[in-house]
Amino acid sequence: MTVEQTSARTLEAQAAAETPAGGAPDLGRIRTALLGSWPDIRLAARARTLDPALHRLDDLRVAEHRDRVTAQLQVLLDSGAVRLPFPSAFGGTDDAGGNLVAFEELVTADPSLQIKAGVQWGLFAAAILHLGTRYHHEHFLADAIELRTFGGFAMTETGHGSDVASIATTATYDPAVQEFVIDTPFRAAWKDYIGNAAVDARAAVVFAQLETLGEQHGVHAFFVPIRDEAGRFLPGVGGEDDGPKGGLNGVDNGRLHFSGVRVPRANLLNRYGDVAPDGTYSSPIASQGRRFFTMLGTLVQGRVSLAGAANTGAKIALQIALTYADQRRQFVAAGSDEEVLLDYPRHQRRLLTRLAAVYAATFTQDELLQDFHRVFTGAEDTDESRQELENFAAAAKAEATWNALETVQECREACGGAGFLAENRFGQLHADLDVYVTFEGDNTVLLQLVGKRLLTRYGRRLQAAGPAGTAAIVGGQVASSAAASAGLTAIGQRLADGITVAGAARALRETAVQERLLTERVEVAIAEIAPALRPAPGVSPEALAKRFAEHQHALIEAARAEARLRQWKAFTRAVERETHAPTKALLTVVRDVFALQAIERELGWYLTRRRLSVARATAVSRTLDALLLRMRPYAVPLVEAFGYEQGHLRAPIASGAEAARQVESRATR
Amino acid sequence: MTVEQTSARTLEAQAAAETPAGGAPDLGRIRTALLGSWPDIRLAARARTLDPALHRLDDLRVAEHRDRVTAQLQVLLDSGAVRLPFPSAFGGTDDAGGNLVAFEELVTADPSLQIKAGVQWGLFAAAILHLGTRYHHEHFLADAIELRTFGGFAMTETGHGSDVASIATTATYDPAVQEFVIDTPFRAAWKDYIGNAAVDARAAVVFAQLETLGEQHGVHAFFVPIRDEAGRFLPGVGGEDDGPKGGLNGVDNGRLHFSGVRVPRANLLNRYGDVAPDGTYSSPIASQGRRFFTMLGTLVQGRVSLAGAANTGAKIALQIALTYADQRRQFVAAGSDEEVLLDYPRHQRRLLTRLAAVYAATFTQDELLQDFHRVFTGAEDTDESRQELENFAAAAKAEATWNALETVQECREACGGAGFLAENRFGQLHADLDVYVTFEGDNTVLLQLVGKRLLTRYGRRLQAAGPAGTAAIVGGQVASSAAASAGLTAIGQRLADGITVAGAARALRETAVQERLLTERVEVAIAEIAPALRPAPGVSPEALAKRFAEHQHALIEAARAEARLRQWKAFTRAVERETHAPTKALLTVVRDVFALQAIERELGWYLTRRRLSVARATAVSRTLDALLLRMRPYAVPLVEAFGYEQGHLRAPIASGAEAARQVESRATR
Repeated sequence: MTVEQTSARTLEAQAAAETPAGGAPDLGRIRTALLGSWPDIRLAARARTLDPALHRLDDLRVAEHRDRVTAQLQVLLDSGAVRLPFPSAFGGTDDAGGNLVAFEELVTADPSLQIKAGVQWGLFAAAILHLGTRYHHEHFLADAIELRTFGGFAMTETGHGSDVASIATTATYDPAVQEFVIDTPFRAAWKDYIGNAAVDARAAVVFAQLETLGEQHGVHAFFVPIRDEAGRFLPGVGGEDDGPKGGLNGVDNGRLHFSGVRVPRANLLNRYGDVAPDGTYSSPIASQGRRFFTMLGTLVQGRVSLAGAANTGAKIALQIALTYADQRRQFVAAGSDEEVLLDYPRHQRRLLTRLAAVYAATFTQDELLQDFHRVFTGAEDTDESRQELENFAAAAKAEATWNALETVQECREACGGAGFLAENRFGQLHADLDVYVTFEGDNTVLLQLVGKRLLTRYGRRLQAAGPAGTAAIVGGQVASSAAASAGLTAIGQRLADGITVAGAARALRETAVQERLLTERVEVAIAEIAPALRPAPGVSPEALAKRFAEHQHALIEAARAEARLRQWKAFTRAVERETHAPTKALLTVVRDVFALQAIERELGWYLTRRRLSVARATAVSRTLDALLLRMRPYAVPLVEAFGYEQGHLRAPIASGAEAARQVESRATR
Repeated sequence: MTVEQTSARTLEAQAAAETPAGGAPDLGRIRTALLGSWPDIRLAARARTLDPALHRLDDLRVAEHRDRVTAQLQVLLDSGAVRLPFPSAFGGTDDAGGNLVAFEELVTADPSLQIKAGVQWGLFAAAILHLGTRYHHEHFLADAIELRTFGGFAMTETGHGSDVASIATTATYDPAVQEFVIDTPFRAAWKDYIGNAAVDARAAVVFAQLETLGEQHGVHAFFVPIRDEAGRFLPGVGGEDDGPKGGLNGVDNGRLHFSGVRVPRANLLNRYGDVAPDGTYSSPIASQGRRFFTMLGTLVQGRVSLAGAANTGAKIALQIALTYADQRRQFVAAGSDEEVLLDYPRHQRRLLTRLAAVYAATFTQDELLQDFHRVFTGAEDTDESRQELENFAAAAKAEATWNALETVQECREACGGAGFLAENRFGQLHADLDVYVTFEGDNTVLLQLVGKRLLTRYGRRLQAAGPAGTAAIVGGQVASSAAASAGLTAIGQRLADGITVAGAARALRETAVQERLLTERVEVAIAEIAPALRPAPGVSPEALAKRFAEHQHALIEAARAEARLRQWKAFTRAVERETHAPTKALLTVVRDVFALQAIERELGWYLTRRRLSVARATAVSRTLDALLLRMRPYAVPLVEAFGYEQGHLRAPIASGAEAARQVESRATR
């Protein structure tokens, strides 16, 4: 039987036959697995978001939407949940991970609420906690937590977004009066896109280049009052409203600038760098570069929470679209009844592959939250664990936010005209989630960081291996078309031409094969890029920068592959934790769909690097189609296993109205 | 020199060396080419859209936005331009093509205006013109054109979107009083998403299943008054507001339903089917199926105009993003100055490939408009030319609208936080253009039609060739992995392994090579699918439908490839029309970028079908990178050649403000 003669349905029958018997999958177990490591906090947060007072209303003006969201923060505060990550003195339990879990869930109410709460507690208050010391905690933290002081996190400038090291706002120490003088030197140095800054903020944590005794010490954070109680800018402070945005209009973003604004010396958030009364600078971290990255490290919380929030948005969208797709009928294919949309293979391709990706992102997010919790509670807080966390968060945030945006769009289109109505949520979800892919670190910039770390890791491996080991590593990984044209890799050979497609399909579902293929996509790409970027005698920094630019696209693609590999691993660990055989079999099908779509997307790469034979590559799509057919009957249970209720979905097309209309129309005919 | 050792820069130098000398490209010539076949009408339309009265305002409530757009229609009417497509008796010049050109341009003012105008003149009035006869022209047309009667085009039903043949609204003839009785049998048969229906419409062209003397004659259109002058529903008519939408909130979409609503017999728009006073049905078209498609054929105008309008949106977005990317600097790569965003190869990949695609779509649109004009003015109105026009419009609409949506999103992300501000346009453009991909025919459904026509064409070719010819055609095209594993196709062989990458790059820029590769992507795919779908003895319709479903994904992919091939051909014809050598060379680079990105996107397909060798496939991406470097210096001139002014862009980041800020910040440092 050749590949061409083997249809997806044949493979599907084969896959079904291979599935261990033993009864139906237990969706309750899957639901528990998806809930993750803080189930009680997550369920409580979901119960809170059922409150209509927290829901977004359509057709509000920007000012009305802002007022509504500001008032909603008080509702959250009254619930007590927002105090979780803070020390017990402030009503919290130091539960860093649990706190983010609760934040993620706010998206079902209104993403603006999630972001506004994130600005106030996750950025402004958290900066006071993490970058400040006892004085700041005593003087500023309670007011920030209890909403007595709304605050901005004034880092980004119009001229510098993701490149924080280059910001131009200055904070010059004046020893005569023991004050810092904050200044905005030119228009491009205005703080911009700052949440709370347009209206609500009375203070801000302002990031500026610290100068004392004529010396520069890099970026530091300062607590700066900006408005009086009546909301008027304090002397020297100015700004403007960023105005309406593409989404998230419940958040009042704005611009700020400073002209000779003086704050007491004590307002420097001095955990990682301090200035003595006489102007002497000191820091527990000697290197300015490392100090900068340590301070920025506190930002990782934002990225972790955006990844989770984006997943929440994608889940809601998928549940709405899949519920509809499972009820809606359109066009008569055969017989007398119209086809259910989800029975169209194209529809399965569009939605079920996305469902698999959101499963992968969900299991990944739980691991990310656990890592975050270990670092931020101090359970495992080392330089290495922090760096690894930042790297993981960068990869997960980029992948989850893009996936969510694309998923919402696909869901919108899959629901046709009904999907365009505001009542069915997709348009607003897309508009709101849009900026998640560029804020708290532009995804492209984040992936570049992930890519650089891959290069570093590769360099270290070569160094550790010595000359002989290096040859083996390079020989094993770099498959230049000249060098590799003679043969395939070990796994590739097992799957060489001539094998039956049934065998190829079976192999593609093996965990070891998937791991090898997904790992090679990263490692071979890095091995291809690395030699050109190694500093060498006679290569100027300019030439090296040029080379880096030439490989930027390939490096970012490798980083995305790394992000997907991490997702696949997290998914596989979740599958391996499952002990109930039929449930495990179903989860494995979904995991396989995730793996095969990742491989299919890169088919050209695998073929040009001779990591897949042509026969095997052909089997990838067929096997994927077969697995989608296997997933199809479980589509709605799998999406319901996310655990959201109608009060979270709030979409008429997911309410069963479509099914009811069809019953009526059939009865009438 | 192996493929791996050949950098994009080397190839770029090669490409530069091959470019004929003779001076700089003439952007004025390109501008003229892009303006297309109705330059005066297009320029006049652009001049009109500079009027601030026509511009969208941010932060309006839905009701305010609707009122504004309704008032804007009067401005358009006063300009006289909207009368163009109508007969001279109605103030027009029968200029079908020129009319659509003017419509396309409304997008720069507000896509809601384009759609609302399209509903009133392009659907409601056009249906009266094209489906009605003298009586309807005399009684209804002038009021529709002159906005004395706002009207809806009530075709789509809640239960049936793109499947118009299945609508359930009935129009039963009552010979006793010579009236039609319009009825909505159940909820799913409510007319839905109907523009003008929520507020403005006083009448509607209602599509319903015509029944007379107990016999069904299929879908027909009726002129039905629905509201009195005060805006109250007439007896038997009901409806509701579709409410806020994901975009296009200047259009009042709504639902309508009918209970025993009676209209005179004369209100049947009877060009393609009539009922005599005694109830006898007659039609100039015998077949009910053909009659249906002929009536729906008048809808092609909407698809043509959506394709052009989507291109307009993509152009605006690209001009904003590229202007910014050419000024904005971020991160220091080498040396002391920060890099301009557009000098990052990843940024070139993101934006310049899109620019090439919009060039392709623009030249395609002009050919589509010419075809449309020939058919609708009667210059070349045959069954075959109408079908070919519908097919072309389906392919072009699907490709242009998806491309626009993706382009706007890519531009948004490429501009980071600034791209998210409403003042910079992307968010609203995306929200508004979103529904273009599913209305007036869901893109997926349209592509399926294109795919079916490809199958028919292929079947006819086989039939015409006879048994011997069939073997040659099939043998030449179907490359099953078993059959083709021995060798590459003719062109593939010229490019087999061992060739230098410089040679491969040169070949990939040859028009004949590109045409062959893009054509093969369509024809081989169709040849692969066709055998399974051929009706054969012993194959039940159900089995055939199942098989069709199994191949749906592949068929739609083939149809997209056909759409791209058409774009490539239109682009190539435009290049060939250019006589000024340096200008032609530049246009060729852009055309090549379009071709190579289309091939790169399908690399896995080309490799698994052995249409490209591994070495050649590797050269595709390198050559594309090299061409992007060649395009880079002309990025801004190429986008300015679209001819839009600041009054069309209305985006602060494209105003030069970014460059001014940088001059200031550098002066200050």
